[in-house]
Amino acid sequence: MQKSITEARRVFDVAPFIADLGCKLEQLEPGICHASIELTEKHQQQDGFVHAGVQATLADHCAGTAAVTLIGDHQMVLTAEFKINLLRAAKGKRLFCKSSVLKPGRVLTVAESEVFAEDENKKQRLVAKATVTLAVMDKPQIEDQ
Amino acid sequence: MQKSITEARRVFDVAPFIADLGCKLEQLEPGICHASIELTEKHQQQDGFVHAGVQATLADHCAGTAAVTLIGDHQMVLTAEFKINLLRAAKGKRLFCKSSVLKPGRVLTVAESEVFAEDENKKQRLVAKATVTLAVMDKPQIEDQ
Amino acid sequence: MQKSITEARRVFDVAPFIADLGCKLEQLEPGICHASIELTEKHQQQDGFVHAGVQATLADHCAGTAAVTLIGDHQMVLTAEFKINLLRAAKGKRLFCKSSVLKPGRVLTVAESEVFAEDENKKQRLVAKATVTLAVMDKPQIEDQ
Amino acid sequence: MQKSITEARRVFDVAPFIADLGCKLEQLEPGICHASIELTEKHQQQDGFVHAGVQATLADHCAGTAAVTLIGDHQMVLTAEFKINLLRAAKGKRLFCKSSVLKPGRVLTVAESEVFAEDENKKQRLVAKATVTLAVMDKPQIEDQ
Repeated sequence: MQKSITEARRVFDVAPFIADLGCKLEQLEPGICHASIELTEKHQQQDGFVHAGVQATLADHCAGTAAVTLIGDHQMVLTAEFKINLLRAAKGKRLFCKSSVLKPGRVLTVAESEVFAEDENKKQRLVAKATVTLAVMDKPQIEDQ
Repeated sequence: MQKSITEARRVFDVAPFIADLGCKLEQLEPGICHASIELTEKHQQQDGFVHAGVQATLADHCAGTAAVTLIGDHQMVLTAEFKINLLRAAKGKRLFCKSSVLKPGRVLTVAESEVFAEDENKKQRLVAKATVTLAVMDKPQIEDQ
Repeated sequence: MQKSITEARRVFDVAPFIADLGCKLEQLEPGICHASIELTEKHQQQDGFVHAGVQATLADHCAGTAAVTLIGDHQMVLTAEFKINLLRAAKGKRLFCKSSVLKPGRVLTVAESEVFAEDENKKQRLVAKATVTLAVMDKPQIEDQ
Repeated sequence: MQKSITEARRVFDVAPFIADLGCKLEQLEPGICHASIELTEKHQQQDGFVHAGVQATLADHCAGTAAVTLIGDHQMVLTAEFKINLLRAAKGKRLFCKSSVLKPGRVLTVAESEVFAEDENKKQRLVAKATVTLAVMDKPQIEDQ
């Protein structure tokens, strides 16, 4: 299991888009991943709220990382689909995401993500909820060479 | 209608996250929006493919802009929810998104987005398909002052 | 609130398709609805499992009923969209659904449903999870006449 | 291919819930399935409209049947998840569903369904649109014995 946790940490950190967005890994256990983003103007849509795409990216990547904690060596995950409900217009200092695996599988893993907007007093408000279906597959052999 | 098109163009261009991502408006007609992203390393996930979050952001924003072309003055849209299927691992020179309104509404508008990955010969391959539900609402009065 | 609970009970019981399916209301509180179906052969798909449509119908109707407990007089709800993940092939004596409102709203209410398959010893296993977006609207005036 | 079509026809007809609902297979080609339901009172929800569960069942089963036309012998499909947008309150004489495979796959197939309500003059109106993800798997060996 420890190896999966190490791999999950690598997957979280090594993705360029996640680094560019400022996503930070907060917690990692088997089947669980928490992550956050310090919000700046660049994360906004046209009306000053956090863009749905930022929330979706955090929800998807955090769910995928949670899934990786439960897969075998030589396996990887790719998002097959996800659905996200934006429950409230999101504003604040920080986005915080809690993802957990609802159903691990040999071929498909389903995870859920809750995204919270945090104000200056660290008070969290649920702003989005996502369900993410991940395809579990063997890593291409070339990576072993 | 012309006013809605102007407003849609403004909505597309003024969103900081969309500018940061490098999204470019390609076409705009009543109920239709096309947009693209020149792909760089920053758009990638851990295995070198385009991150699902990039595809989702483009699909969502392009759908929202298509919706704005059909709303009234003093109205705005916010994404209520969306669902995206990632059909193939996406790689290439450019992402190209075609969004169209499936059902405009007084309170809810539903739009669809098709995301294509384009190779060096401009050959397009469908990599994702999204359905986006947008809440149509009056702009806060403060904006009129 | 009591009036909403009464209305929710009416909505659950009066729907012909729900009666035809054998759905039974099990519990009703503000924001929460539980319901069940005694499984027979008629609920099956081609391989002997419970049809996804049966699970979806139960998940949708139970979520809608939970939403009705929180709306005003003269209001009604209509499902705007839902998404359901079928986590395991479902078999058993009974389906049991637990729905709760994630976010009530003036225009949109979002609810979640968990569907369990129950075996002969009443042991429950999660077989599906759904997210349901409901449009809240005024009842047509004609109903007041 | 002919064998897959035969198998798809069998899958459509043999599902008890589909027969109970009155679903009728209308057309079947590789990657495409059309089906219909003559509407009666039993298909209604509490306000006299066609229940979302009826539309969802038709959309899911028709999509699954379209997927079966493209799989190999000894394979079967199970719905992994689906999402449906109910675009208009549905009423009429008949529901008509057109499903097509968006992306066939070795492990996952994605199909789309459009559901139309048909009035007495056979005029069709789009009332729902669904995206269905199907898991493709080998039939249990026991069926070969």
